[in-house]
Amino acid sequence: MKNDDFKGRFSDTMLEIAKQVKENANLINIKEILDAISLILQIHEAKNITFIYGAGRSGFIGRSFAQRLMHLGIKSCFISDAVTYQYKEQDLLILISGSGETTSTVAIANKAKSIGGKLILLTNNPKSTIGKISDTVIRVKGKSKNLALSQETLAPYTSLFDIPTLAVLDSIGGVLMNKLGVTEADIDNRHASIE
Amino acid sequence: MKNDDFKGRFSDTMLEIAKQVKENANLINIKEILDAISLILQIHEAKNITFIYGAGRSGFIGRSFAQRLMHLGIKSCFISDAVTYQYKEQDLLILISGSGETTSTVAIANKAKSIGGKLILLTNNPKSTIGKISDTVIRVKGKSKNLALSQETLAPYTSLFDIPTLAVLDSIGGVLMNKLGVTEADIDNRHASIE
Amino acid sequence: MKNDDFKGRFSDTMLEIAKQVKENANLINIKEILDAISLILQIHEAKNITFIYGAGRSGFIGRSFAQRLMHLGIKSCFISDAVTYQYKEQDLLILISGSGETTSTVAIANKAKSIGGKLILLTNNPKSTIGKISDTVIRVKGKSKNLALSQETLAPYTSLFDIPTLAVLDSIGGVLMNKLGVTEADIDNRHASIE
Amino acid sequence: MKNDDFKGRFSDTMLEIAKQVKENANLINIKEILDAISLILQIHEAKNITFIYGAGRSGFIGRSFAQRLMHLGIKSCFISDAVTYQYKEQDLLILISGSGETTSTVAIANKAKSIGGKLILLTNNPKSTIGKISDTVIRVKGKSKNLALSQETLAPYTSLFDIPTLAVLDSIGGVLMNKLGVTEADIDNRHASIE
Repeated sequence: MKNDDFKGRFSDTMLEIAKQVKENANLINIKEILDAISLILQIHEAKNITFIYGAGRSGFIGRSFAQRLMHLGIKSCFISDAVTYQYKEQDLLILISGSGETTSTVAIANKAKSIGGKLILLTNNPKSTIGKISDTVIRVKGKSKNLALSQETLAPYTSLFDIPTLAVLDSIGGVLMNKLGVTEADIDNRHASIE
Repeated sequence: MKNDDFKGRFSDTMLEIAKQVKENANLINIKEILDAISLILQIHEAKNITFIYGAGRSGFIGRSFAQRLMHLGIKSCFISDAVTYQYKEQDLLILISGSGETTSTVAIANKAKSIGGKLILLTNNPKSTIGKISDTVIRVKGKSKNLALSQETLAPYTSLFDIPTLAVLDSIGGVLMNKLGVTEADIDNRHASIE
Repeated sequence: MKNDDFKGRFSDTMLEIAKQVKENANLINIKEILDAISLILQIHEAKNITFIYGAGRSGFIGRSFAQRLMHLGIKSCFISDAVTYQYKEQDLLILISGSGETTSTVAIANKAKSIGGKLILLTNNPKSTIGKISDTVIRVKGKSKNLALSQETLAPYTSLFDIPTLAVLDSIGGVLMNKLGVTEADIDNRHASIE
Repeated sequence: MKNDDFKGRFSDTMLEIAKQVKENANLINIKEILDAISLILQIHEAKNITFIYGAGRSGFIGRSFAQRLMHLGIKSCFISDAVTYQYKEQDLLILISGSGETTSTVAIANKAKSIGGKLILLTNNPKSTIGKISDTVIRVKGKSKNLALSQETLAPYTSLFDIPTLAVLDSIGGVLMNKLGVTEADIDNRHASIE
């Protein structure tokens, strides 16, 4: 392979990712987004806790969002971090699973449901096990694990699900920031100073 | 704020993110990308190890890439995970830091440099402390921590750096996948089955 | 409370912990230890992978052991780290759960069992859900979560399970080190140099 | 090696670890412990935050302690977790480093010192770089990285530092629990319910 091939393939993959984010901007069911924002705000106003969980790359994206919520002054934790609070029936759990069938994520969803709190799922598979028990399901369109072998794309495996999902969560973060009147200076004043 | 405002702001933030990814597709210095890919392939062929590090959200993006490299059959680790190998002079370290000045990332970069391996940095600030000692610097355009208070955007704080950086890394992953002849079925056969 | 009270209580708690480790040295069923060591060596010799998992503090202890195995030259990963390999039927999974009933640990044990690999459990509750499906159960005596409210101790909550469990795993590490002929210099040469 | 050899070596290693914990119970400078407890209580009463950091196995032990502090109702975070707060001059940083020279730990200690908060170090090397800038140094006797090649022990590498350090932190936890009037039922009510 010549450098020229690398070059074209790199740019084309970037454009494919940008397009997938843009498509989600246009096609996402805005009612699902509004429901999720509304739930997060309710939990925040009642001084309850927003828990986040996902496995693998979905977990890394979830951690990014848990941190952003802290920046906004919203009490949150990522399940499995050292400080993982006790989930109670008045709390909220946001789950990320492209397939909606990830082993530990299903187990955690079921446990949370049995305790009684609210569940939001970001997935490409709303009819999945987790989708069926969630209060709000945000459908993020993109190649998830269950589709990895049947869809041909330039971006590898689940990248076209992962990146739009991070974009959706950060855009929800943007709306929350505006709604709560949080400024960039506020975030700067909450962002880690030693890390 | 009415639901209509939420709705417009959400979509506009998504589109802002998509635009930032697209701009990076067009404006990124492709030579930097080719250098990085070439280094990763050299290290892989010599059976050496690619280390990844970043703090905070840069770290979560770095972990996503470390996992993708494993999917491609490339030996990698994220520094701070349970299995963090010994970095030696023949190894490669990929760092992510928007400002190029993050405390632990600077310390780790300096230590790696003193050991003698190669450094790749993804940053919005190539003239930073880490930028100056890196062998290859990939400039990702986007609002990084050092610019958070001076640039007005819809996406909060560093989101416009974080997401394009993940897109750049996953696009590098796409090129590597193609170059190494790795298929989606190969990744499916390496992806975690219990998690 | 005066400083004198602090002083006595601190020392007494340390002695309580030391005593619990010592009791496990004497009372542990050595056959369980030998079975576990034998399994780890088999997996290593067959060039297969030892996976480790636990939630919460059991997870932090598990990560410590996963790292020690790497130091010994044994291929391992902690499930949920960036590099989590695919678990296959020829692999080994070591689980830590005081109660044997932790949500995600039960789910991961069941999934691993369905794939077909071997399971080792360290627990204070051998008759638990995970205990029943494990190939080897190492009973570590100590106050686990299921006993937290009924046993009065100086060390808080599960500390008297957690610390003896780390001692058991590190002692297994010591035996493996001896058996494999690994020296301190070998470990020093595998230990992280940038972290 | 016969099973008999395994058996003796395992038990002897357990006893060596128990002995090291017991020795630290007797030899530790109780003034250092009282200073640390007093600092943690001051920070807690002033509603400030206790940060914890360590790299590698010291980090896993630190995470265990950060979680225990949360169980006691003390606001804490482990640096690098998703929710890592901003460290401010009124906060406390507890560091774990056997050698007192670990790369990222030194960098984080220096940054915290420049911000102005208090530092507690647990180490086997009080005259180290971090030792010199810490407000309180708890000397934990045990084979740390800097002594790994010169001390012959059954327990591998730093295990004789790591386990006594966890015992010291959990014993500090026990004293805090008693002092704050926290019960096992309180911890049970704060312990993660979904994990």
